Amino acid sequence: MLELAAQITDREGIGFGIVDLEKDRKLAEKLGIFEAGSIYAYKSGHKVEFDGQRSTDVLVEFLLELDESPVEEISSKIEIQSFKRHEMTKVVGFFESSSSAAYDEFVDAALDYQPMISFFAVFQKLLAKQLGLGDLNQIDFYEPYMKKPISIPGEGPHDNTVIEEFVENHKRATLRKLRPLDMYDTWEDDVQGIHVVTFADAEDPEGYEFLQMVKDIAQQNTENPNLSIVWIDPDDFTLLHDYWERTFGVDLKEPQIGVVNVTDVS
Amino acid sequence: MLELAAQITDREGIGFGIVDLEKDRKLAEKLGIFEAGSIYAYKSGHKVEFDGQRSTDVLVEFLLELDESPVEEISSKIEIQSFKRHEMTKVVGFFESSSSAAYDEFVDAALDYQPMISFFAVFQKLLAKQLGLGDLNQIDFYEPYMKKPISIPGEGPHDNTVIEEFVENHKRATLRKLRPLDMYDTWEDDVQGIHVVTFADAEDPEGYEFLQMVKDIAQQNTENPNLSIVWIDPDDFTLLHDYWERTFGVDLKEPQIGVVNVTDVS
Repeated sequence: MLELAAQITDREGIGFGIVDLEKDRKLAEKLGIFEAGSIYAYKSGHKVEFDGQRSTDVLVEFLLELDESPVEEISSKIEIQSFKRHEMTKVVGFFESSSSAAYDEFVDAALDYQPMISFFAVFQKLLAKQLGLGDLNQIDFYEPYMKKPISIPGEGPHDNTVIEEFVENHKRATLRKLRPLDMYDTWEDDVQGIHVVTFADAEDPEGYEFLQMVKDIAQQNTENPNLSIVWIDPDDFTLLHDYWERTFGVDLKEPQIGVVNVTDVS
Repeated sequence: MLELAAQITDREGIGFGIVDLEKDRKLAEKLGIFEAGSIYAYKSGHKVEFDGQRSTDVLVEFLLELDESPVEEISSKIEIQSFKRHEMTKVVGFFESSSSAAYDEFVDAALDYQPMISFFAVFQKLLAKQLGLGDLNQIDFYEPYMKKPISIPGEGPHDNTVIEEFVENHKRATLRKLRPLDMYDTWEDDVQGIHVVTFADAEDPEGYEFLQMVKDIAQQNTENPNLSIVWIDPDDFTLLHDYWERTFGVDLKEPQIGVVNVTDVS
């Protein structure tokens, strides 16, 4: 997998290296690698672990997304619409300009979470207002499928450690879609070993309706620290259909909901 | 790839076989196989060629979709909404009941195109009307992204050869999204060797806007037999990014449009 990914990403200016944890202890320590078999990416001095499905296309997707700017600028009404359509975990901040010190701190924090959590920034007061960002240096965090954000506490500007702590405290979502890109990270991010798992095909009318219901439940339970719902669209994981049908004893042609102990899933 | 797919689909009751075109000539003739390296599926006496990306997950997706009912019934308002959201090539018919002879002929035609073209049926007059199906046994064909359908000519009921001819005459779409499931079929279905190819990421604001424009163009040119637009969302084909960027000399981070001679693409 790594060889193929290296061939593909070589032209994008992304390099690969393998570290022998026994022989290259010093290098491993320097890079902060402790676990064998892990894949890390390094960008602008930040380390991001690849915790997605172990296949070439998913790893390449991860690297290509990592290669993009860590913060996406919102500079038009169209981009506000696009921001609203984005249903994954997202963070948005209002800054004076892209050269302000407060923005630099924001970029620094973004580099720790990108591409798993998307960071957006707005520099125009009018657009900021439309996003509910009334104060300069205000930073809002949105759980997936949530319309109301959580604002960073305290007066701005905030430094990167404060922003990172804020993201860290809220990043476990009530409801999220399982993606090949970070599926292992999602499974590990359980509540005392437990996830509520829902299988639903969004293109199927029954699945679509079922999902609307699950989204409503999630919105009503955003504050509940004991609920983690993982939505799986079976179409995204055809190779795992059979495995899941056997493990959970369900028929994935119908929407399904159940409680899963993560130790059962791999 | 076949071995892995066989392991996965075995429990679904789908079998695999390999035919040696030299040694098993009679069998090959009986199955209608003439081309080496092709993959065909057989269902209810119908043969469907697998013309998608040669990877296990795509083949398994094809087989799982093939395993579903060839015609989806629309029996509620919710299912009408779902039908409208379906942006691929689709055929819908209004029949007296699921046991009518006219419906049997429709199912027969569906088996030749499923899972590449979706077939829908409605048995309730009120729902049929909402879909623009005023006459019993009326059959409508929708190109992807088109709101206005084309109705089958002549008085119903229609037999399967008439329906198949009707589908065959209209199936080359003005605009379609490239899917791993039938990508080779799409490339082969060119207009004198030519496709207009557009690369746009639907999740990116620029890409989204660009696509709206392309959809408008397609709707204005539905009747034009000389236009075939293939929309590629680069996110669906991460492993081909680099290849396409080199072949077409484009940067896939931005929306792109151009004319492609299919002999250049593989």
